[in-house]
Amino acid sequence: MAAPEVEAPETIEGYWVLHDFRRIDWPRWRSLPEAARSRLLEELLGFLGECASVEGVERGGSSRAYRVITQKADLAVIHFRPDPAQLFDLQAGLWRCGIADFLLPAYSYFSVIELSLYRGPSSRPEVMERRLYPRIPDRRYMCFYPMNKRRGERYNWYDLPASERREMMKGHGRVGHKYAEQVTQIITGSQGLDDWEWGVTLFADHPIHFKKLVYEMRFDPASSRYAEFGPFYIGMTASPQDITALLLGS
Amino acid sequence: MAAPEVEAPETIEGYWVLHDFRRIDWPRWRSLPEAARSRLLEELLGFLGECASVEGVERGGSSRAYRVITQKADLAVIHFRPDPAQLFDLQAGLWRCGIADFLLPAYSYFSVIELSLYRGPSSRPEVMERRLYPRIPDRRYMCFYPMNKRRGERYNWYDLPASERREMMKGHGRVGHKYAEQVTQIITGSQGLDDWEWGVTLFADHPIHFKKLVYEMRFDPASSRYAEFGPFYIGMTASPQDITALLLGS
Amino acid sequence: MAAPEVEAPETIEGYWVLHDFRRIDWPRWRSLPEAARSRLLEELLGFLGECASVEGVERGGSSRAYRVITQKADLAVIHFRPDPAQLFDLQAGLWRCGIADFLLPAYSYFSVIELSLYRGPSSRPEVMERRLYPRIPDRRYMCFYPMNKRRGERYNWYDLPASERREMMKGHGRVGHKYAEQVTQIITGSQGLDDWEWGVTLFADHPIHFKKLVYEMRFDPASSRYAEFGPFYIGMTASPQDITALLLGS
Amino acid sequence: MAAPEVEAPETIEGYWVLHDFRRIDWPRWRSLPEAARSRLLEELLGFLGECASVEGVERGGSSRAYRVITQKADLAVIHFRPDPAQLFDLQAGLWRCGIADFLLPAYSYFSVIELSLYRGPSSRPEVMERRLYPRIPDRRYMCFYPMNKRRGERYNWYDLPASERREMMKGHGRVGHKYAEQVTQIITGSQGLDDWEWGVTLFADHPIHFKKLVYEMRFDPASSRYAEFGPFYIGMTASPQDITALLLGS
Amino acid sequence: MAAPEVEAPETIEGYWVLHDFRRIDWPRWRSLPEAARSRLLEELLGFLGECASVEGVERGGSSRAYRVITQKADLAVIHFRPDPAQLFDLQAGLWRCGIADFLLPAYSYFSVIELSLYRGPSSRPEVMERRLYPRIPDRRYMCFYPMNKRRGERYNWYDLPASERREMMKGHGRVGHKYAEQVTQIITGSQGLDDWEWGVTLFADHPIHFKKLVYEMRFDPASSRYAEFGPFYIGMTASPQDITALLLGS
Repeated sequence: MAAPEVEAPETIEGYWVLHDFRRIDWPRWRSLPEAARSRLLEELLGFLGECASVEGVERGGSSRAYRVITQKADLAVIHFRPDPAQLFDLQAGLWRCGIADFLLPAYSYFSVIELSLYRGPSSRPEVMERRLYPRIPDRRYMCFYPMNKRRGERYNWYDLPASERREMMKGHGRVGHKYAEQVTQIITGSQGLDDWEWGVTLFADHPIHFKKLVYEMRFDPASSRYAEFGPFYIGMTASPQDITALLLGS
Repeated sequence: MAAPEVEAPETIEGYWVLHDFRRIDWPRWRSLPEAARSRLLEELLGFLGECASVEGVERGGSSRAYRVITQKADLAVIHFRPDPAQLFDLQAGLWRCGIADFLLPAYSYFSVIELSLYRGPSSRPEVMERRLYPRIPDRRYMCFYPMNKRRGERYNWYDLPASERREMMKGHGRVGHKYAEQVTQIITGSQGLDDWEWGVTLFADHPIHFKKLVYEMRFDPASSRYAEFGPFYIGMTASPQDITALLLGS
Repeated sequence: MAAPEVEAPETIEGYWVLHDFRRIDWPRWRSLPEAARSRLLEELLGFLGECASVEGVERGGSSRAYRVITQKADLAVIHFRPDPAQLFDLQAGLWRCGIADFLLPAYSYFSVIELSLYRGPSSRPEVMERRLYPRIPDRRYMCFYPMNKRRGERYNWYDLPASERREMMKGHGRVGHKYAEQVTQIITGSQGLDDWEWGVTLFADHPIHFKKLVYEMRFDPASSRYAEFGPFYIGMTASPQDITALLLGS
Repeated sequence: MAAPEVEAPETIEGYWVLHDFRRIDWPRWRSLPEAARSRLLEELLGFLGECASVEGVERGGSSRAYRVITQKADLAVIHFRPDPAQLFDLQAGLWRCGIADFLLPAYSYFSVIELSLYRGPSSRPEVMERRLYPRIPDRRYMCFYPMNKRRGERYNWYDLPASERREMMKGHGRVGHKYAEQVTQIITGSQGLDDWEWGVTLFADHPIHFKKLVYEMRFDPASSRYAEFGPFYIGMTASPQDITALLLGS
Repeated sequence: MAAPEVEAPETIEGYWVLHDFRRIDWPRWRSLPEAARSRLLEELLGFLGECASVEGVERGGSSRAYRVITQKADLAVIHFRPDPAQLFDLQAGLWRCGIADFLLPAYSYFSVIELSLYRGPSSRPEVMERRLYPRIPDRRYMCFYPMNKRRGERYNWYDLPASERREMMKGHGRVGHKYAEQVTQIITGSQGLDDWEWGVTLFADHPIHFKKLVYEMRFDPASSRYAEFGPFYIGMTASPQDITALLLGS
């Protein structure tokens, strides 16, 4: 049976993205003298402040830290940058902080902000610019998970005609739209870059919105039949004060 | 083939839940002097007591500790809380206990108590309140496992019409009902929150009831065709005396 | 398509069972002075002797130690006990032996001896008693593996009518029966207790019988279509002399 | 649908086999003083020499060491022995060498040389003897991988009539035969003994023959439809001089 | 149902290839005195320089180092060599560098450059020579991933007639050709050599080309229906200066 010719959808890319999740090596960290811990924390906050300072520059990027729940991780940093080489340097930069010796690798993801042109580049340039080069949204909670479109023997996303994929993505978009006020979504593509095909990062003021959105979407055929999900990570925005409280708190 | 429009069932959420399983680092723990162990145990019991103290407050939450069997874990703490941010703090709180250096991460789960309204919110308000904001049941044994509804190429829960799902959940409920006296079930949802879609926590005075219930349910089509199960953890309620005996016992 | 009503088979349960596999931390163990090793070995043998002493009591339980081949484990202890709480204590009891610091967790399994009444409780009470509350057979080799019955999209054990399952289990039984003299089988159920649905423990005087039995059974439809197998562990009975030779042998 | 009665093929077994792959703990090994390393190496070579000495005895067994490529392992030892209990002792014997503290477990496999009598025991006794109790072939390279026959929902080896399996194994044999001069194959069975159903060990003077043979076989229906493959390990024969160069080489 | 006779495609092989990914043990590395780090770095750069020196010799091989993004690895070295035994020696050679104690194993892959003759050996000898014995391309970014052709129950590459496979590979080639200027592909075969069937190594001046190429290919039936992908690794060429900056940079 000859396979149909299927064209790939066009995409436009914006910022390059690194999600960097770490587990704190609590036993070793707590065995340090108070003064050493303060000094290392100071250095970390300096590094994070420098990371975030690019937000003042147009298309300069954005960076934000999170506390993470469950044993999967304790801390996370998300970086958006215009040049992927900058992310290589930020990765090395964190390792060069003394505290990195106490921040064990837990999970990380390399991807790039992607707009799919399923419906054509109808957006006005300012909207496109804001979606391709956004600041990390200022919401209290963050949810990250990677995903694939299924290539099953019966349900194979990549075998569908473009029109059918477009129709399903529209339905998918309707659910996203319904939650637009509560949840900001940033979709990053990672085909050829990391182990899954996309990363999804959600931002909301309360995690109940992640649950409601993801549950409702799961009944949408674009998800129910065609989505495969990786691990889920939930974080809470961490200001310098929060990080200090976490690491030095009594 | 156009996929049918499928509506998601409505759910109501109650307490936020953290299951926190730990392995004891026995070699390092046993190498401590007796006095140090006593002091660290004391601090742990203080922390656990404080956790449990919220049970006196309406909708304040609930916390309980368990000894766990098999090498998967040695200890577990389950926390119910009204605000998810409290669970972030409890996670950090345990790490700040000195003994946490000897409590290796083993497994954890983040979810929220969920009532599914498949049959409509027929319950009276007091019953709803008790089911959404329960105390952790006072039974000797606990069983936890996460699960998904299958999205197979032939059997796809999320593709079924609501009426069929409702019918199956009713049959499922009948088995649960049959064991209602022996086993208390608490279902927590974790779509968008953790790696599986639900957590199931069972409480009974003897683990034989877990086996009988789970085995019988497995023949129920909601399980036989549509359920995927994660790891199973079995715990036994641990009073301060039990924890002391476990950690200092000769 | 409505799923048929399928009744679960009745089962009777006997002893509760813990399989506890350990890897020896050889580098650290060998770095101990000879005298320390002798003392720790002595303590272990004392513990194992105490474990086995219940065999003198009716329905008191049974315990036995094994050397294990391949890197998966070096030692194993199997415990049968009438009360699951005793297995929690035996788990802690081994950890309290000083040598446990050198016995790394490798694999463990929690289950309960199960008789399935597919053919009705036709056995005489003495036979039932012996099968539900057996001594661990006195054979030179032991084979353990956990397994599931498949819940595939086409071959789903839990969807079959009881008569068909009964027929297949009979065929399965015929193969077991053929090897009855060479191999003693103990089936333990673990639905709701551990990560697989059953544990299978075989005992024989030579491992060739494990191979012949398992290979022949694999052609039986109850296995070929419906069985999923976990890891296999092979042990050789270890007397106190054998354990001493293993741990102190030159 | 009643499943057909399917008879298992008869097999004859010969030597028992242990594949033992190790990673060298280079940092700790290199931190030893030169003299200590020489002494430990000496002891290892003594042990390996003793292992190989059984080759002088009829049906005494065979042992050989290999360097291994990729991070999966650095060294491997393969043992053939007439009695499985000897393999338990060889496993312990290696651990008792001081250098074992620097040879981290990487992978291992327990199986037994198997001749399948699909075509009847037509071979002459001397040929059978040589195939059941062979010396490890004296070729420069070795390839090991474990495998299963698929029990899929559509393609299930164990559901096929014997005649069809026999036909496919013949085709499979033809490919093996074509490479007989370049590649010596030893098939070991491990049903009921280890996690896969068979081990395949290939020996050749150049690894290109492994690639050509395995690639060509993959188009054979016995492989293309029915084989599932585990990890592949590639080794190069290591004489005492080679092991010395590897471990002490500058 | 008799399976059709399916002939394997002919292939020609060139250089043998080792991909060697490492994680830097930052805590231990940073705890070294500056002088020790400089000395170890010097030795590493010497080793890498020696590796690369073979590029001056015809069919001598090629070697190159990369920084890697995400927690999966920090550094990678790729070696092409005419004789596989040389790769065993290069693996040992890196371990013999003192810095190897701080370069933890992360991932590695053993394969051989492969030209498939689906369309016959139409290329002129000089082209063949360049494709079988290439220098590692001088592009800023590298992408590596292993892959299989699917042997599913419905879509089984190895069951397809040669003509159909040839047709699909042609379509596949067309996409590759479209990106030929931006992306250099080197395909290595690893049937019988490592855990997947092929390795794909892509080279480009910007990682956006990896994403575009891989995404477009995924809609090609040779990929959409028949490809299974392993992990993806992204590196950036690392000169001695880059490695120095990474390892000693402030």
